[in-house]
Amino acid sequence: MHAVTIVEGALVWAERDDPRPGPGELLVQVRAAGVNGADLLQRRGLYPPPPGVVADVPGLELAGEVVAVGEGASRFAPGDRVMSIVAGGGQAELAVVPEGSALRVPDAMSDAEAGGFPEVFSTAHDALVTQAALSAGERVLVSGAAGGVGTAAVQLAHALGATVVASVRSPEARDAVAALGADAVVEPAEVAASGPYDVCLELVGAPALAATLPAMATGGRAVVIGVGAGARLELDLLAVMGRRLRIGGSTLRARSLEDKAAVAAAVARDVLPLVASGAVRVPVWATVPMAEAQAAYDRFAAGGKVGKLVLVTD
Amino acid sequence: MHAVTIVEGALVWAERDDPRPGPGELLVQVRAAGVNGADLLQRRGLYPPPPGVVADVPGLELAGEVVAVGEGASRFAPGDRVMSIVAGGGQAELAVVPEGSALRVPDAMSDAEAGGFPEVFSTAHDALVTQAALSAGERVLVSGAAGGVGTAAVQLAHALGATVVASVRSPEARDAVAALGADAVVEPAEVAASGPYDVCLELVGAPALAATLPAMATGGRAVVIGVGAGARLELDLLAVMGRRLRIGGSTLRARSLEDKAAVAAAVARDVLPLVASGAVRVPVWATVPMAEAQAAYDRFAAGGKVGKLVLVTD
Repeated sequence: MHAVTIVEGALVWAERDDPRPGPGELLVQVRAAGVNGADLLQRRGLYPPPPGVVADVPGLELAGEVVAVGEGASRFAPGDRVMSIVAGGGQAELAVVPEGSALRVPDAMSDAEAGGFPEVFSTAHDALVTQAALSAGERVLVSGAAGGVGTAAVQLAHALGATVVASVRSPEARDAVAALGADAVVEPAEVAASGPYDVCLELVGAPALAATLPAMATGGRAVVIGVGAGARLELDLLAVMGRRLRIGGSTLRARSLEDKAAVAAAVARDVLPLVASGAVRVPVWATVPMAEAQAAYDRFAAGGKVGKLVLVTD
Repeated sequence: MHAVTIVEGALVWAERDDPRPGPGELLVQVRAAGVNGADLLQRRGLYPPPPGVVADVPGLELAGEVVAVGEGASRFAPGDRVMSIVAGGGQAELAVVPEGSALRVPDAMSDAEAGGFPEVFSTAHDALVTQAALSAGERVLVSGAAGGVGTAAVQLAHALGATVVASVRSPEARDAVAALGADAVVEPAEVAASGPYDVCLELVGAPALAATLPAMATGGRAVVIGVGAGARLELDLLAVMGRRLRIGGSTLRARSLEDKAAVAAAVARDVLPLVASGAVRVPVWATVPMAEAQAAYDRFAAGGKVGKLVLVTD
């Protein structure tokens, strides 16, 4: 098979050994694999995968067709369309997926949509529902709403009955984000005045969160998922105490297989029905042949996109 | 009646108008009222009470005998022994208590113990159970364990089946804290090496929490209750994300009556049975006549105590 391969900070489309499914694993012929911010960090050597995961093939999510199943794997059979988060190695013609992480692709979903679904919807659902316990009627800020997780979170929060304020940097992204269900789309400088917020999903980083915290309501919860703009936060613990704030953060990648299976089960239960009903969808900004991953990453890094950039195979 | 009264940073035992119970309130003849760190801040003008609460009579907890009940109050009758958190005004011969906040004093509890119970056990229970969701078998750090909340938290966490590491500054406090059920009593400098911790109850402040965070386990929760040593925390959000940490904080005083009633109900359900069984107790370090509050506060401020300093009436 071929795989996107990191060679001294560049991405090449290289011949690699075919992976083989171990016990409880699926071998998937990959049709589509989303690009995420973490992939760009990994290309620069800043976000190594967990131990035991291929280090020079990026890719945290994929969709495709099961072509073989490992010993004891029983939920899927060859020919099934599946999508999954993976700890790495997703941007390749073949990938191995732990069966517990795999989700069945709804019929209405294209390969490109499915390839851009697992990481961002799993992350958004885990952050909003599992970590922040978002309730209907609450007011949520999605800080950095134009990206993959942001567009997923706006839709999910809206579908859950929350009032959604979405911050976006680029004026061009405003209409697209509003169309996803945001009640208000604001510039970063308008965030503080647009509160109070019961929940903040922080996808930009410490400077944005620092500006948001004074606008958090009593009992507010902030969940940090992205820190591209900086990771050092100066926190006033008196304000945290006085308003009973909670500041947390999360990544999916480092979790145990059991945790990831629990995340997948929650997505299957809560989010796939919303996909089937059309309440949420994967906004695919562009598809690029997987062999041209280098150019795709550069487009991602240049910014200005709304939604997902997805690599596709022939 | 007489009440401890703040006059230009000093405490005097002054004649005041008797308070009168409003709808849903109890009038209590106070027998004992614990001193808390917040009282010392209030004396210095640094911790004003919420709006509508008497500003110059300190006291966040009390115990005594019901002498009258306001309109609609039905859970207690004159002659009942009660104890309660209050938003202020507890250090007086008479105090008004919202009925929902009041707890019946177990027979085995002395007035002095009851006067030092509500604030610290409510705070410790709310922080460990409601905020941090401490589970049996988890490892908890009580950072600053010799004080009122600390001694309550060590006992509660031990009774809940957690492994308790207690940090204390003063070598003289070690044995007393160990006797409350701490599995290990360590100096502040030993905290980081004594982890990992699933839960940290932070009673010292930002510098102590900063030293503890690298020793928090994946999924760890820190709850900040005291910041005497400093409130500005420099937080590494990448570490928060990577280990899915959660940092929160809490005060009881600013909460709504409904919230305080919920806290009292949780204490009645979970903690009073532990008092009745002898599993937890209020370690009364000293009792001082209420008229000598000025000297009592000065002793509190001098440090070195283990447990509660309680003001008592004749």
